[in-house]
Amino acid sequence: MTYRAPVKDFMFGLKELAGLEQLTQIPAFADHGLDTAQAVLDECAKFNENVVAPLNWEGDKNPSWFKDGVVTTTPGFKDAFRQLGEGGWQGLQHPEEFGGQGLPKAIGAACIEMINSANLSFALCPLLTDGAIEALLTAGTDEQKATYLTPMVEGRWTGTMNLTEPQAGSDLAAVRTKAEPQPDGTYKIFGTKIFITYGEHDMAENIVHLVLARVVGAPEGVKGISLFIVPKFMVNADGSLGERNDAHCVSIEHKMGIKASPTAVLQFGDHGGAVGYLVGQENRGLEYMFIMMNAARFAVGVQGIAVAERAYQKAVQYARDRVQSRPVDGSTPGAAAIIHHADVRRMLMTMRAYTEGCRSLALVAGAAYDAAHHHPDADTRKVNQTFYEFMVPLVKGYSTEMSLEVTSLGVQVHGGMGFIEETGAAQYYRDAKILTIYEGTTAIQANDLVGRKTGRDGGQTAKALAGQIEQTEVLLAARDSVAAQSFAKNLTAARLAFLDAVDFIAANGRSNPNAAYAGSVPYLMLTGNLMAGWQMGRALLAAQDCINEGEDVAFMQAKVTTAQFYAEHILVKVPGLRDAIVAGADSVCAMALDAF
Amino acid sequence: MTYRAPVKDFMFGLKELAGLEQLTQIPAFADHGLDTAQAVLDECAKFNENVVAPLNWEGDKNPSWFKDGVVTTTPGFKDAFRQLGEGGWQGLQHPEEFGGQGLPKAIGAACIEMINSANLSFALCPLLTDGAIEALLTAGTDEQKATYLTPMVEGRWTGTMNLTEPQAGSDLAAVRTKAEPQPDGTYKIFGTKIFITYGEHDMAENIVHLVLARVVGAPEGVKGISLFIVPKFMVNADGSLGERNDAHCVSIEHKMGIKASPTAVLQFGDHGGAVGYLVGQENRGLEYMFIMMNAARFAVGVQGIAVAERAYQKAVQYARDRVQSRPVDGSTPGAAAIIHHADVRRMLMTMRAYTEGCRSLALVAGAAYDAAHHHPDADTRKVNQTFYEFMVPLVKGYSTEMSLEVTSLGVQVHGGMGFIEETGAAQYYRDAKILTIYEGTTAIQANDLVGRKTGRDGGQTAKALAGQIEQTEVLLAARDSVAAQSFAKNLTAARLAFLDAVDFIAANGRSNPNAAYAGSVPYLMLTGNLMAGWQMGRALLAAQDCINEGEDVAFMQAKVTTAQFYAEHILVKVPGLRDAIVAGADSVCAMALDAF
Repeated sequence: MTYRAPVKDFMFGLKELAGLEQLTQIPAFADHGLDTAQAVLDECAKFNENVVAPLNWEGDKNPSWFKDGVVTTTPGFKDAFRQLGEGGWQGLQHPEEFGGQGLPKAIGAACIEMINSANLSFALCPLLTDGAIEALLTAGTDEQKATYLTPMVEGRWTGTMNLTEPQAGSDLAAVRTKAEPQPDGTYKIFGTKIFITYGEHDMAENIVHLVLARVVGAPEGVKGISLFIVPKFMVNADGSLGERNDAHCVSIEHKMGIKASPTAVLQFGDHGGAVGYLVGQENRGLEYMFIMMNAARFAVGVQGIAVAERAYQKAVQYARDRVQSRPVDGSTPGAAAIIHHADVRRMLMTMRAYTEGCRSLALVAGAAYDAAHHHPDADTRKVNQTFYEFMVPLVKGYSTEMSLEVTSLGVQVHGGMGFIEETGAAQYYRDAKILTIYEGTTAIQANDLVGRKTGRDGGQTAKALAGQIEQTEVLLAARDSVAAQSFAKNLTAARLAFLDAVDFIAANGRSNPNAAYAGSVPYLMLTGNLMAGWQMGRALLAAQDCINEGEDVAFMQAKVTTAQFYAEHILVKVPGLRDAIVAGADSVCAMALDAF
Repeated sequence: MTYRAPVKDFMFGLKELAGLEQLTQIPAFADHGLDTAQAVLDECAKFNENVVAPLNWEGDKNPSWFKDGVVTTTPGFKDAFRQLGEGGWQGLQHPEEFGGQGLPKAIGAACIEMINSANLSFALCPLLTDGAIEALLTAGTDEQKATYLTPMVEGRWTGTMNLTEPQAGSDLAAVRTKAEPQPDGTYKIFGTKIFITYGEHDMAENIVHLVLARVVGAPEGVKGISLFIVPKFMVNADGSLGERNDAHCVSIEHKMGIKASPTAVLQFGDHGGAVGYLVGQENRGLEYMFIMMNAARFAVGVQGIAVAERAYQKAVQYARDRVQSRPVDGSTPGAAAIIHHADVRRMLMTMRAYTEGCRSLALVAGAAYDAAHHHPDADTRKVNQTFYEFMVPLVKGYSTEMSLEVTSLGVQVHGGMGFIEETGAAQYYRDAKILTIYEGTTAIQANDLVGRKTGRDGGQTAKALAGQIEQTEVLLAARDSVAAQSFAKNLTAARLAFLDAVDFIAANGRSNPNAAYAGSVPYLMLTGNLMAGWQMGRALLAAQDCINEGEDVAFMQAKVTTAQFYAEHILVKVPGLRDAIVAGADSVCAMALDAF
């Protein structure tokens, strides 16, 4: 087996960190407690371990293939996607009304991690479909919901996000795709979209493109962008499929990674105009698209965790099997498996600590989303929404950045074999690099964190989080344990550094934006490191409590050790990042432009 | 032009940091001062910019190809290699006696950087040949030198290093290739070698394999390994080529990067035994191979700098061309080239600062090698040899690790386009990953740094270096300049952290080796960061002096700015690494083995 889902760690995170039992007090989730979670995760693990994971390397060797407007996916993908739909996995988080299971996002996050560990390229299709479903749920008319949602939730149709154009990447204000209103209330869509994930493929009966376009005469900039449904095949009144719409794939990209996932160039309207249906109101398209994007950003963060987990598992396996040299402590008489060497241990622990830290953060953020959307109490919803929104750029930005380091270490553990494609470690390294780019680059996440999430309220949300972290420090410091004491010390130093950075950003955000934004990515890395570390501190406390009660001692001891490693090797990076942000802002933009 | 050689920066480094003028006081280098350097670098730049660089992407698309024992290289490689030989570039650092030019390694390092920036895959062939030449110069008989050196120095024959076997990677004690002595004084060689760079190709008339093997009856372990010359074609007494030797390529690897460079599996002796000639004495093979390896390690470090430089240049070009979004400071009325965005500037400055820091270190180390080998004064030779030996694992380990970050940033600057292979940024990212692995992984370099270079003399060499760094701090602190003051402060903090780490390693190296080696790679990263930073501090001083004299002010101001950025964004990582090494040693190996 090439991937074994870390179900026990998911359950630990859901129970001890994300507070899944508390979520069952919310009426919508009354039946979705730990027992449900265990049952769902066990089944999800089986599906992904047995069906999806074995297709991962095949997809790299034999990627999606374009000919004459048709994209043929890797052999096995179509059948696996059918099983995904039949198993109800596409509908996990979606309303029962449209055929879904209505599970909390906290549980959903674990499932998303599994399918992405199993196969990033494959998982992108349901991931984008999830986003399209959320956008239609929020902004679609009842008729649109009735037409599109059930087949999408059931995994028979898929969804896409059509934002990017050659001149409009991070800058959506530059979108030029045009929408001409028609007498029947529909629109004709004309334009070119690029980088459309699963923009064309053979795994589903229909593809529901959600397309950003500008209605003729609309204002310039982001305030003139509207959102349209453009189905690949028109849908008849009875739900059956009609004519082919004028939306065609003209090529797919030749990429460094996630090769099995077709990245399409789509041409709308070259044969008279693609039929589009307005979603919500004209000129509010960006707002609706952000619903998709925020769902997708969280999910892409989970992709980072997922590929890191897969890389870790592969590296551990190799480190156990590969015999090379005698350990420096002379603990074996001759050459030993390389897992006995201190630096291999350091690499594996680094991979593990990053992965567990980011996973913990994602599960906690997922539970906050659930409370924010479904809790009966408005104040509780608001508090949780603020928490979730602060965490989204961190889950996206930090988890994906760490996945670059983890997948690089994964190759490194394999030595020369890691560079040979057939070994498989290199695929994770190549695949991961897209994660810091799509759905908003790390810099875009960092701008969000600096501007909307930190600067806008003068650092209040950030400082409130620091207050919560301080409470965890107090609990850690009260423990009579080396691990807890060490954690408390490093967490305090990291929190204080965070506060310095927050003050700097709050002070400079408006008066000297170049200074504040010069440190935006370091600030994201600092804050992500701290927030994931905070969760590892909470995990340490919970694991020690479990050990004291004799519960699953070996697992809990490993959690304590991993947490201590996180504090001593990862949290310690935080003060240096503070120095770069606070004292290093001026040197970032000091170079004369023509001197580069 | 896809690559423009940074000749001005090489000249600055050679003059202001490496002290090339002082080297001319050594009789061997009397004619090889700044004028020679300028002339050589200008010509070298032309050759690599115009002939070698244009083949880089072609090599990735159309890699070396194996069929029936024959390897065909990328179209254009053979002709470029002929030009390399005819231009005298293979012989740059080698003795005039064998057709070389006898230039200092300091100048050679600049030339090696250029050819590797131009084309890592292509450059590996002369790189390995350089190593083979050095080994034969040191340990070969006069007859062997007469037979092999001139054609190698002239670029007509190439050389290889045959160390690795399936069970013997980092652990050369496990080498099993067998050498049977023959009555005529030759040996018959039997065995399989893997990962042999340019082990077979069509660019040269002959290939001189240097092969580690075990003479029948030799002791076990590394003390029973001998070194053999095994030519692809036997060489007649008159230097003409004779029969094909029994050394055959049976396959080449399918790799993530450096695809144009054929990585061969070589089978020796399947048809009766390959004829081998002993180099030096039996059982001293590893010692001779280390001559090659040390030359190759330095060169691989320069490869890291080279690929970082190329990635930087490409990213700058894209950042100037790509228009997207309005800067946060409102400095342009509408969307601007992305080089105007603070985080893009931060990425470019990070790439540049790492690259210039590591380049400075390599040039300084190269000059120390020259003094160590050619200075008339024995004490000066010894001091320089000690300095050089300390720097080799840093040049190799730190420059290659930083190249991973730099090439990743290179992709990131390109956004989604970076992930598309045709853009070219992804190739650097894929190519770079081998650099932290071959010629000794980063962990192998770090073990060398911890054991032989730091622990063995109880930290004396390291502390002497810290003393030199402190002198630079004093000079910086005396300057009335924000950049110099900021640099002095960060350099002091980094030096003190280094001393803490040195003390920790000296104290634990023998008594608690797991603790000392648990932090080996962090110690390498700390020390490399500091040593490259030290050179940037020296560069800052020199550049300010030049500015005061009105010399090339724009270039010198950019150097000052880059140095300040290095101090404020890179040197600041050092204290956190110290904390990981000193306080985090225990958590590295604390995890129960079966808990991974």
